[in-house]
Amino acid sequence: MNNIEGIKLKINKERIQRNILELGDIGLSNKGGVNRSLASQADIDSREWIKKYWQKNVVKKITTDVGANLWGDYPYSSGKKLAPIIVGSHNDSVPEGGKYDGALGVLLATEVTQTLVENKINLRHPLKVISLTGEEPNPYQISTLGSKIISGVVGQDYLKRFNHIETHEALSEAIDRLGGDFKHIDENTLAPNSFAAFLECHIEQGRRLFERNEPVAVVSKITGIYRELIELKGEANHAGTTDLKHRKDALLAMSWINLELRKFLSEFEPCDPVVGTIGFAEVKPNAANIIPGEVRFNIDVRSGNWEKVQQTIKFLDQCFMKLEEKGLMLNREKILNQKPANLNDKIIDALSETVEQNFGYQPQKMTSMAGHDAANLAKIGRSGMLFVKSIDGKSHCKEEYSRIEDIETAGNVLLNAILKLDEELD
Amino acid sequence: MNNIEGIKLKINKERIQRNILELGDIGLSNKGGVNRSLASQADIDSREWIKKYWQKNVVKKITTDVGANLWGDYPYSSGKKLAPIIVGSHNDSVPEGGKYDGALGVLLATEVTQTLVENKINLRHPLKVISLTGEEPNPYQISTLGSKIISGVVGQDYLKRFNHIETHEALSEAIDRLGGDFKHIDENTLAPNSFAAFLECHIEQGRRLFERNEPVAVVSKITGIYRELIELKGEANHAGTTDLKHRKDALLAMSWINLELRKFLSEFEPCDPVVGTIGFAEVKPNAANIIPGEVRFNIDVRSGNWEKVQQTIKFLDQCFMKLEEKGLMLNREKILNQKPANLNDKIIDALSETVEQNFGYQPQKMTSMAGHDAANLAKIGRSGMLFVKSIDGKSHCKEEYSRIEDIETAGNVLLNAILKLDEELD
Repeated sequence: MNNIEGIKLKINKERIQRNILELGDIGLSNKGGVNRSLASQADIDSREWIKKYWQKNVVKKITTDVGANLWGDYPYSSGKKLAPIIVGSHNDSVPEGGKYDGALGVLLATEVTQTLVENKINLRHPLKVISLTGEEPNPYQISTLGSKIISGVVGQDYLKRFNHIETHEALSEAIDRLGGDFKHIDENTLAPNSFAAFLECHIEQGRRLFERNEPVAVVSKITGIYRELIELKGEANHAGTTDLKHRKDALLAMSWINLELRKFLSEFEPCDPVVGTIGFAEVKPNAANIIPGEVRFNIDVRSGNWEKVQQTIKFLDQCFMKLEEKGLMLNREKILNQKPANLNDKIIDALSETVEQNFGYQPQKMTSMAGHDAANLAKIGRSGMLFVKSIDGKSHCKEEYSRIEDIETAGNVLLNAILKLDEELD
Repeated sequence: MNNIEGIKLKINKERIQRNILELGDIGLSNKGGVNRSLASQADIDSREWIKKYWQKNVVKKITTDVGANLWGDYPYSSGKKLAPIIVGSHNDSVPEGGKYDGALGVLLATEVTQTLVENKINLRHPLKVISLTGEEPNPYQISTLGSKIISGVVGQDYLKRFNHIETHEALSEAIDRLGGDFKHIDENTLAPNSFAAFLECHIEQGRRLFERNEPVAVVSKITGIYRELIELKGEANHAGTTDLKHRKDALLAMSWINLELRKFLSEFEPCDPVVGTIGFAEVKPNAANIIPGEVRFNIDVRSGNWEKVQQTIKFLDQCFMKLEEKGLMLNREKILNQKPANLNDKIIDALSETVEQNFGYQPQKMTSMAGHDAANLAKIGRSGMLFVKSIDGKSHCKEEYSRIEDIETAGNVLLNAILKLDEELD
């Protein structure tokens, strides 16, 4: 059963496709990747593009908040006493990233709003479209920045410590440069439940939709992330004259941890996964003929099931204890300890029902294994997410791709779920 | 039985100790390590110190050869028709190295020659003391440089490709700056068997003498070294959204190789060891939340038993094949493939007999697990080495240390072995 012909409103497929390509040209390198890191010139340029496009086609009033997030107000809302529905995502990208991660969510929110504008739909709730600041890892070393600020997860004092790893520009200056107002950050967070719903559409960045060949899924939960930075010290020594039994090879020790972690994680059920990664490693002195005396590395562990993350940490504790017994010294620093964020049931239901009624299938409800702005907003109000299929599961690279047919489906689901929520929510 | 009181000549313990401290001050950093890398100012300063000391106390004629090696001619030699005996080592050091590696060999050769001068001993052979150029790894990326040049292992064409990794100074210019003559390098190598013997005294840099508590050992062989540079390519992907079974984690693959190699090597007999090390590794993109897509790393395998090195390479071939079957791509480049160098039996016997007769014990005959200039000289003539005990086996660090009592023993062995070889050799 496919009721797509019967749905109230439909987005414009050609227009969203054109906009994806146009915004995707901003920050495009000659290697073919998109480079729109927080506060870079391309970040600024993409903000200008969004503001111009909104001004011309979508909204009447555009504002920039204290965290430099861009807001656009939908003009046809009657219910002045109801809290607004917010829809959007982020405009920044990783280095040499793709055209879809973040941008698609901003452009679909824009497209949905533009379709409502064209049809002069009078909504019960105010509707706000948003483009969030600095969601990706960036040289200022803080991600999901814009949503952290407005949801009050971080405050001025905490943010003062961050600056650009190369230029040393203070994060506060970068925020002001983008149109924010660092001085007044603490007084301008969103009050709990001051919005009726936050909706974000994003590419899945995994293979689950691709393998089941389904266009969209509803996110029920955003993964918990545990991350630590380990300094493992052994003994740098001559790679020829030091016999095997007298070595304290820090890189060999890290290699062992890497394999033990993988073995441990492989035993969890694939339906409720825990993933773990050593993605960053730095060896000292790092010479062919010297046994590594020191390795600094990260371990990143993620799952929607926080209990399983705790089991993994206990297992790592045991592994590190064994290394200490062998005479290696270590220092472990907790970098991230974010519990999974449950998304809002009313939004999950509205999205699921919209898919079922119009596209004739029951969408998967899945845990997002990446962090998202929606997780910060979930701390202070109803927050929900819709995933679009990623071809081959690729993301954070120039090969990142979602088919326009799936994007069209996502846009129509988002549009009609907003209409549904506008009716149902108070 | 200890005949030390009965030996013909003895070196001056206080003087050698003073000279070790004086030369060890050149290039000393505030961290306490010696920094006398090839063609650095400290390298130049140490050469000036050596030349001044030789001129004042040891020899009459000092020359600098095409490879910038320093030579000093002992004045009291009668047998003009016999080929010279050469004794020495290198004056350069690794970054933040110790006072003994290389320097001790130059200073003991100097001390032995000075003792002979003081006693006006008339030798049958000419005797030459030598301080060799650039033995250690250095920013010009070629080690045992001076001995490679004079033994004809490398020529002008080959050397033209090297330059300083940071300043980009050509190696040819550095050699000329040190007093060498790069233009005439090819015409000025030592002819095969143009010397009667080359003798080098060096710290062991391992724990074998330390554990048996013996002052010196005779080197019978210098280790073979096989080294490769591997580029292992997997797939960089999101560390959260990519499930375990779809990962191609290059760092995990390298970790597996590291542990497999160690397991394989552990099964060889400790009396005839093979050691293997991953000392250098560079991860890309090297971010906590991205699965490593690429790792460049070195594997260094060493043994006096070349057959065992070949077995290890075959084992590595099998491991890498398994990684290729799993979809990883790799590029392996052979960097070093030096067979073990056998040292000369006559010199081995002379050194062993000198120890036995004067110090009452049979010295160990051991394979040097580090490369040395003596290995290059062994290609064209009689070459031999004497090892001095390294406390705790440490080397290439500021903690590198040999006791003056052991150094005195080494000096007396070297002195009397030279007298013995001068009598025995033609």
